[in-house]
Amino acid sequence: MSYTLAEIAEALGADAAGDTSLTIARAAEPQSAGPDDLALATNPKYAEALGTGRARAAMLWPDADWQALGLEGAILPTRPRFAMSGLTRLLDPGQGFGTGIHPSAIVDPSATLGEGVSVGPLAIISAGARIGAGSVIGPHCFVGADVTMGENAFMREQASIGARVTIGRNCIIQPGARIGGDGFSFVTAEPSTVEAARKSLGDQGDAQAQPWIRINSLGSVSIGDDVEIGMSATIDCGTIRDTKIGNNTKLDNLVHIGHNVEVGDNCLLCGQVGIAGSVRIGTNVVLGGQVGVSDNISIGDGVIAGGGTKILSSVPAGRSILGYPATQMDKQIETYKALRRLPRLMRDLAEVRKAVFKSGKDD
Amino acid sequence: MSYTLAEIAEALGADAAGDTSLTIARAAEPQSAGPDDLALATNPKYAEALGTGRARAAMLWPDADWQALGLEGAILPTRPRFAMSGLTRLLDPGQGFGTGIHPSAIVDPSATLGEGVSVGPLAIISAGARIGAGSVIGPHCFVGADVTMGENAFMREQASIGARVTIGRNCIIQPGARIGGDGFSFVTAEPSTVEAARKSLGDQGDAQAQPWIRINSLGSVSIGDDVEIGMSATIDCGTIRDTKIGNNTKLDNLVHIGHNVEVGDNCLLCGQVGIAGSVRIGTNVVLGGQVGVSDNISIGDGVIAGGGTKILSSVPAGRSILGYPATQMDKQIETYKALRRLPRLMRDLAEVRKAVFKSGKDD
Amino acid sequence: MSYTLAEIAEALGADAAGDTSLTIARAAEPQSAGPDDLALATNPKYAEALGTGRARAAMLWPDADWQALGLEGAILPTRPRFAMSGLTRLLDPGQGFGTGIHPSAIVDPSATLGEGVSVGPLAIISAGARIGAGSVIGPHCFVGADVTMGENAFMREQASIGARVTIGRNCIIQPGARIGGDGFSFVTAEPSTVEAARKSLGDQGDAQAQPWIRINSLGSVSIGDDVEIGMSATIDCGTIRDTKIGNNTKLDNLVHIGHNVEVGDNCLLCGQVGIAGSVRIGTNVVLGGQVGVSDNISIGDGVIAGGGTKILSSVPAGRSILGYPATQMDKQIETYKALRRLPRLMRDLAEVRKAVFKSGKDD
Repeated sequence: MSYTLAEIAEALGADAAGDTSLTIARAAEPQSAGPDDLALATNPKYAEALGTGRARAAMLWPDADWQALGLEGAILPTRPRFAMSGLTRLLDPGQGFGTGIHPSAIVDPSATLGEGVSVGPLAIISAGARIGAGSVIGPHCFVGADVTMGENAFMREQASIGARVTIGRNCIIQPGARIGGDGFSFVTAEPSTVEAARKSLGDQGDAQAQPWIRINSLGSVSIGDDVEIGMSATIDCGTIRDTKIGNNTKLDNLVHIGHNVEVGDNCLLCGQVGIAGSVRIGTNVVLGGQVGVSDNISIGDGVIAGGGTKILSSVPAGRSILGYPATQMDKQIETYKALRRLPRLMRDLAEVRKAVFKSGKDD
Repeated sequence: MSYTLAEIAEALGADAAGDTSLTIARAAEPQSAGPDDLALATNPKYAEALGTGRARAAMLWPDADWQALGLEGAILPTRPRFAMSGLTRLLDPGQGFGTGIHPSAIVDPSATLGEGVSVGPLAIISAGARIGAGSVIGPHCFVGADVTMGENAFMREQASIGARVTIGRNCIIQPGARIGGDGFSFVTAEPSTVEAARKSLGDQGDAQAQPWIRINSLGSVSIGDDVEIGMSATIDCGTIRDTKIGNNTKLDNLVHIGHNVEVGDNCLLCGQVGIAGSVRIGTNVVLGGQVGVSDNISIGDGVIAGGGTKILSSVPAGRSILGYPATQMDKQIETYKALRRLPRLMRDLAEVRKAVFKSGKDD
Repeated sequence: MSYTLAEIAEALGADAAGDTSLTIARAAEPQSAGPDDLALATNPKYAEALGTGRARAAMLWPDADWQALGLEGAILPTRPRFAMSGLTRLLDPGQGFGTGIHPSAIVDPSATLGEGVSVGPLAIISAGARIGAGSVIGPHCFVGADVTMGENAFMREQASIGARVTIGRNCIIQPGARIGGDGFSFVTAEPSTVEAARKSLGDQGDAQAQPWIRINSLGSVSIGDDVEIGMSATIDCGTIRDTKIGNNTKLDNLVHIGHNVEVGDNCLLCGQVGIAGSVRIGTNVVLGGQVGVSDNISIGDGVIAGGGTKILSSVPAGRSILGYPATQMDKQIETYKALRRLPRLMRDLAEVRKAVFKSGKDD
C-alpha cells in the first residue's frame, strides 16, 4: 500500500508542491522519518526535527517554505490537524481480519447478513440478528438475539452486544466493548436508607437495612449512526425504553453509560467517564476523562467539562465546567488559586482578630 | 408471553381494578403506550402523559382515580417502586441463550454439572469445576479450574472466572465481568519510595528506585448468594485467604475490588467504584458512582457515600459522606457553599486588614 | 506440591530454625493455619493469633523467638515483606491451563511459536504473530496479526492484543486486558468548541458544533520486559509512533492508557488510573488508584500521587502529590485541614468585620 504525494494531496483536498511523484509508504515523525516516509511536521516547531530525520517529503502548514526545509516535495493543507484525519484513514494498515464467514464462526440460521459481511473466527451471531452490508464482525465477537446493526459496522475482537440492541451505520466497536447489560436498578420493599439519606443529607436515622431486589431491564440499547464505543466501555439496557446514544457520538475506553441514559448527537465522552442512570445529555457535549454525572440530571447542549469533573446537579447549555462539585471553569480556577492561599488567610485572620479584640472586644 | 391484568396483579400481590381480563403484552411509558401495553404511571406527574398515549391499562399508585385517567383497568400497588421489581421480572424477554450444552462448548470431563445446567456456544468449563443445578453459562464464557458455582447462576456472554473461585446461589454475572485475576501486590528488596512517602507525607528523600517484584495470589475469591457482578467489573484474588463478597451484594459495571478486600452483605457498589487492597466494608453500605477507597481501611455498616467520594481513612458505621477527601455529607455541603464565597472572603479580609493595621498595627 | 521448611528457607535465602524437615502444603493466616500450613505471622501483632490456629511452623521476622510462640519450626527472613514474593511464587497452584496447543485453538499457519508455547482452548493466533519460547496463551485469548511477544509471557483467559503490538519477555496479561485499540482522536473541519474553551477557560462563545472526524491510529503499542497488564485495562495505539510502556512497569485493573502515551520503566499504575493522550511519564512513578492525568503533560521521574489525584499540569521529578487539582502532598493536607475550618473562619471574619467597621468604617 503506497501512494504518490500527488495521490495523497488529492485525497486530502490539499495543495502539493515539488516532486509530487515521490512514493510514500507510511507516515512518520520528522526525526525518525526515512526516505519513503511522509514526515508529519504540521507546525514550525515540529519542522525543526526534519533535519535529524531523512524525510524527502513532509506534510506541513499552508504557507510553509518547504524548500528551505530541505525537502523534495510537500503537502500543504489548509488545516493540518484536520488533514490528519484523511491521511491516517488512507494509510491505515488495518487489523487484517480477512473476508467472508470463518468456518469456526457460529451463525444462527435465522440471522440475516447483508452483502459482504465478514464474520471472524469463533464469533457468534445469534438468532434473529440482522447485520448490514459491508459490516465486519471480528474474531471472538458476540452478537445477541435480534440485534440490528447497520451497514459498514466495524466490530473489533471480543466485543459483545446483548439481545435486541439496535446500532446504526458506520459504527466502530473497539475490543471488549460491552453493550446491553442489565441496568443497575434495585429496590427495597420499604423505603431504603439511601432514600432517607438523600432526603436528610445527613445520617440515615432509623431506616432499617433491607435486601436489594432487582428491577430487570425490559428495554435495550439504541445507538445511532457513526458512533464509536471504546474498549471495555459498558452500556446498560433501559428499564422500560431503550438507553440511547445519538448519531456521531464517540465513547472512549472504559466509559460507563447507566440505564435509561440518553446521550445526544455529536458528543465526546472521554476515558472512564461515568454516567449514572436516567441522565439526559444534549448535543455537542464534551466530557473530559473521568468525569462523573449523578443520576437523573440533565446536561445541556454544548457543555464542556474538564477532566475529573463530578457533576452533581443539572448544567445549563453552553457552559464550561470543572471540579468537584462541578463549577463554571473560570470560577473554579479562581477558587483553586484562593485555596492555595487558604492557610495564609487563616494566619492573617488570626492576626487581625488578635489586633481587634485585644484592644477591646466588641467595645 | 402475555398476561391478564389479574395475573399481573396476583404476581405482584397488588390490587387490580376495572377490566382485569385485559391482556398485557409488555410494559411501556405512558406517552408511548399502545393498547396492549401496561403503562407505567406510578405517580400523578407521570400519569399526565397517559392522555398522549393509547394505554387501556396502567400501573398507578395506591389511591389513584384510574377511571378519571380514562383507563379501562389498573394495577394499584402499595409501593409502586417495589412493584416494578416483580413486574419487570414477569415481563423480561431474556437473552434467548437456549438450553442444554451447545456442541461447540468445551466441558472438561472432570467438571460436574447439576441438573438443567445450560452451557452456551464456545463456552469453556475447566477441570474440576462444579456448576449448581439450573445455572446458565452463557456464550463465550470461561469457568476456570475447580470453580464452584451454586444453583441458578446466570452468567452472561464473555464473562470469566479464574481457578478456585467459589460463588453462591442465584448469582448474576454480567457480560465481560472478570473474577479471579492476580492481586496487584508488589514489593521491593529494600523499603521503597512509597513506604518513605507514606511516612513523611512529603517527597521521598533519598529512597532509591528499585524493581517491583510480584507477590502472587495464593487465595482466590469467595462470593455469597444473590450477588450481582457488573460488566467489565474486576475482582482480584486474595494473597493468602480469599477476597470476599457477602450475600446479596451488588457490584455495578467497571467496579474494581482489590486483593484481600472483604465486602459485607447487602451492599450496593455503583459504577466504577474502586476498592484498594485489604479494605473491609461492612453490611448495607452504599457507595455511589466512582467512589474510591484507599487500601487497608474499613468502612462501617450502613455507610452511604455520594458519587465521586474518595475515602482516604476509615469511616464509622452509619455515616453519610461526600467529597474528596470524604467528609460528613452535611458538613461537606456547607464547605462547598463556603468555597464558592472564598474569593469574596479574601477581598473582605484584605479590606479589614487595611482598616485595622492602617490605623496602627499591633498597637 | 509440598516443601520442607528447609527447602522453603533455601528458596527464599532466609534462615530456618527448629525442625526444618516439617512438610508444608500451603501458606495460611495464623488464626486459620492447620498443622501442614506455614503460618504467615511476619510481625509481633500477627503472631498473637498463632495461639488460636494449629500451625507447627511459621514465617516470622528476623529476631523472632519462635519457641516462645509454641512453634516446632520457623523461617526468619531479613525482610519478611520481600520474602512473601518468593514464598507465594513457590506455593502458587496456578491456573491449570495445561500444555501444548489445544485442538480447538486457531493458529494461523504463518504464525511462529517458540519452543514450549502453550495455546489454550478456543484461542486465536493471527497471521504473522511471533510468540516467544515458554509463553502461555490462555483460553479464549486473541493475538492479532503480526504481534510480537517475548519469551515466558503469561496471558490469562479472554485477553486480546491488536495488530502489530510488540511485548517483551516475562509479561503477565490478566483476564480481559485490552491492548491495541484505536486511539480516541477526533478532529473537526474548523476549530472546535473545545479548542475555543481551552483558550478562554470560559464558555465557548460563538464556536459552532461540528461533526467529529476520526484520526486513525497508524502506530501500535510497544511494551517492555517484565510488564504486567491488569484485568480490563485498556492501552490505545499511537497515532504515528507506538504508545509505549517501559520495562518492569505494572498496570492494575481497569487502567486506561491513551494514544501516544509513554510510560517509563518501573512504574506502578494502580486500579482505574487514567492517562489521557500524549502524556509522558518518567521512571519509578507511582500513581494511586483512580488518579487521572490530563493530555499532553509530563510526570517526572519518581513522582508519587495519592489515590484520586487529578493531575492537570506537568509535575516535576521527585514530587509527592495529592488532590484535585494535584498539589504537593503536605500542602494539600494542610489545605484539607483548613477547609474543615472554613465555615468557622467565615463566622470569625464576619465578627471581626462587625467589630472593625461598626466602630467607624474606613475611618
